[in-house]
Amino acid sequence: MAYLDHAATTPMLDEALEAYVATAREVGNASSLHASGRRARRRVEESRERVAAALGARPSEVIFTGGGTESDNLAVKGISWARRAVDAGRIRVISSAVEHHAVLDAVEWLERHEGAEVGWLPVDGAGRLHPEALRTELAEHGDRAALVTAMWANNEVGTIQRIGELAAVAAEYGVPFHTDAIQAVGQVPVDFAASGVAALTVTGHKLGGPVGVGALLLGREVAAVPLLHGGGQERDVRSGTLDAAGIVAFAVAVEAAVKGQQEYAAGLAALRDDLVRRVRQAVPEVVLNGDPTDRLPGNAHFSFPGCEGDALLLLLDAQGIACSTGSACSAGVAQPSHVLLAMGADDDRARSSLRFSLGHTSTTADVDALIAALPGAVDRARRAAAPRTPR
Amino acid sequence: MAYLDHAATTPMLDEALEAYVATAREVGNASSLHASGRRARRRVEESRERVAAALGARPSEVIFTGGGTESDNLAVKGISWARRAVDAGRIRVISSAVEHHAVLDAVEWLERHEGAEVGWLPVDGAGRLHPEALRTELAEHGDRAALVTAMWANNEVGTIQRIGELAAVAAEYGVPFHTDAIQAVGQVPVDFAASGVAALTVTGHKLGGPVGVGALLLGREVAAVPLLHGGGQERDVRSGTLDAAGIVAFAVAVEAAVKGQQEYAAGLAALRDDLVRRVRQAVPEVVLNGDPTDRLPGNAHFSFPGCEGDALLLLLDAQGIACSTGSACSAGVAQPSHVLLAMGADDDRARSSLRFSLGHTSTTADVDALIAALPGAVDRARRAAAPRTPR
Repeated sequence: MAYLDHAATTPMLDEALEAYVATAREVGNASSLHASGRRARRRVEESRERVAAALGARPSEVIFTGGGTESDNLAVKGISWARRAVDAGRIRVISSAVEHHAVLDAVEWLERHEGAEVGWLPVDGAGRLHPEALRTELAEHGDRAALVTAMWANNEVGTIQRIGELAAVAAEYGVPFHTDAIQAVGQVPVDFAASGVAALTVTGHKLGGPVGVGALLLGREVAAVPLLHGGGQERDVRSGTLDAAGIVAFAVAVEAAVKGQQEYAAGLAALRDDLVRRVRQAVPEVVLNGDPTDRLPGNAHFSFPGCEGDALLLLLDAQGIACSTGSACSAGVAQPSHVLLAMGADDDRARSSLRFSLGHTSTTADVDALIAALPGAVDRARRAAAPRTPR
Repeated sequence: MAYLDHAATTPMLDEALEAYVATAREVGNASSLHASGRRARRRVEESRERVAAALGARPSEVIFTGGGTESDNLAVKGISWARRAVDAGRIRVISSAVEHHAVLDAVEWLERHEGAEVGWLPVDGAGRLHPEALRTELAEHGDRAALVTAMWANNEVGTIQRIGELAAVAAEYGVPFHTDAIQAVGQVPVDFAASGVAALTVTGHKLGGPVGVGALLLGREVAAVPLLHGGGQERDVRSGTLDAAGIVAFAVAVEAAVKGQQEYAAGLAALRDDLVRRVRQAVPEVVLNGDPTDRLPGNAHFSFPGCEGDALLLLLDAQGIACSTGSACSAGVAQPSHVLLAMGADDDRARSSLRFSLGHTSTTADVDALIAALPGAVDRARRAAAPRTPR
């Protein structure tokens, strides 16, 4: 099988799985006072230090969560609620049209359910946000802004945002800035303190750690109302028994991903560039979506004119090629990508798109397999789509 | 070491850990359309069927979550929000004074933050709720009630509630009933459909599964507003990438716990009764808290007059005995147990309490070790506490 869907989930690293097993074999609740509990707590706190060191944060800024969706929801809802509690007029949430659904749907829920108003920032044809657009938005609405949330790198088209510049604009207006850095960590340099953001989402299963474990990096001075109330773990911002085994495995994966990032990204980008070149050769009319240079090293995202992305995905799947039409999280729903639409693509281009994403197990053989299968699959997908074209 | 804190967390079963590892070695996001994704989805759906069958629910009623705290918060907040969305007057949440903090603090947040009002149901000296008290509450306030939430069995003193009777009273008034059954599953028979509850919380790490995985059983007709928005997984009630490995391990543990429940509970109760008898022999002035008969088979909870529970815990810990002063989740905070206070205990009795909880690895040797260490530890704890007694 050629697995070209690392952006959906990437295989767990052996050392992360081994760390999980070793820790799971020890008994003890990290909130218990006895020796077993203190050992579990020590494992968690050592992991907190490792994650913090890898990502340029202080240990006290690492809030362990149940994954990226929870971290995003905690940041978007929790910070908004906290800001409103201090100043009832802070009802505006500023976000971009290309966010992951975990941010998008949390923002829309605040609008629908909590009476928030939303400022949507536009992107250009490459999916890029412009700091000037944020400045315009804040100049007009900054006094009512609760939060800005914008992703570090796009999960579909791979475009990398100028997060430092965006965060600096938000800081000028005193508005906390959250970034979903799920796709970025391990692929590009990510430093929490240097970036100037107030909160940052990271998750395990996109970088070789377990599913169901992630973190929200949350500046010490940034208040957030919890989503999960209870035992008061994690600075009282996120209650729930600490998953010591999962957290240790997550820390191992974060550390490995960050330590090897530079070399890894260079190798990945070279393989990806080869993939792009050969796909263009095989299907000359293909359109590469996203920023041509400022993109995640593992990401290649194309529109195949005349094809339905879903059909093409299944035809490739039948040949042992695993890829995605966009975010795995909204797969199964036959809708054109909101990311491509926001980039100005028409419905046809949005529906005809496929993402190939490379990761730590990817090899030239995977690309070979894709190139061998692609022309035939594109032909079939076109013939299948043709009758639906208006005559 | 004598581990007598299974109610805080119990060792993961070998077969659950093996299932975790086997599934974690397979790559694939259960929301992806390709073969790897479909395989991950199959693992999740098979696990859903196993959990449903073990707990008397339909597969579609199993919502996988990140654990008990999340399930409790989702039920309490999510059902309350959904009820209020339909009828703005449904602002009252009815709960008991002996709930776990994951319920208690969620209810109090609704009161503080969302303008809910709360009806607190009292318990008797054994920690037992009385259906008549619920009937009185609902007769007076039923038309404004959003939800009743009451635990199946108490995590501190082990008292088992008459959940079926309580749920029947709530049903008479058309009010959904949620129960936190975290301590009950595997220790007593738990059947979702037969119990008549609308929602039920269960978690992995109390029954031999992983930490960070649980479920909310949610009746098909019961609406809940999500806490976590995003990809729309789990009936759109709980978004987030499905933790296939964790879910498979959880299902293995649930099935094992339920399958062997009757025999297991009998053995556990015999060992626990022996522990109670011998503790009473060793420290005659000890008080057994909770219901003398209707209690969890693994639970023994005492007050040791003249001792501070925390001091006794640490003295026993020094001898290799692991136990708890109550809920591990609020350990570290030197407050008298809210459960004992609600049962009418005075501050001294509440502060002098210790819980010994048995589980699947417990043996007579553990009880022997406790009994060998206990009299000396009680003596020391009393001498330490004495100077603080008013003269």
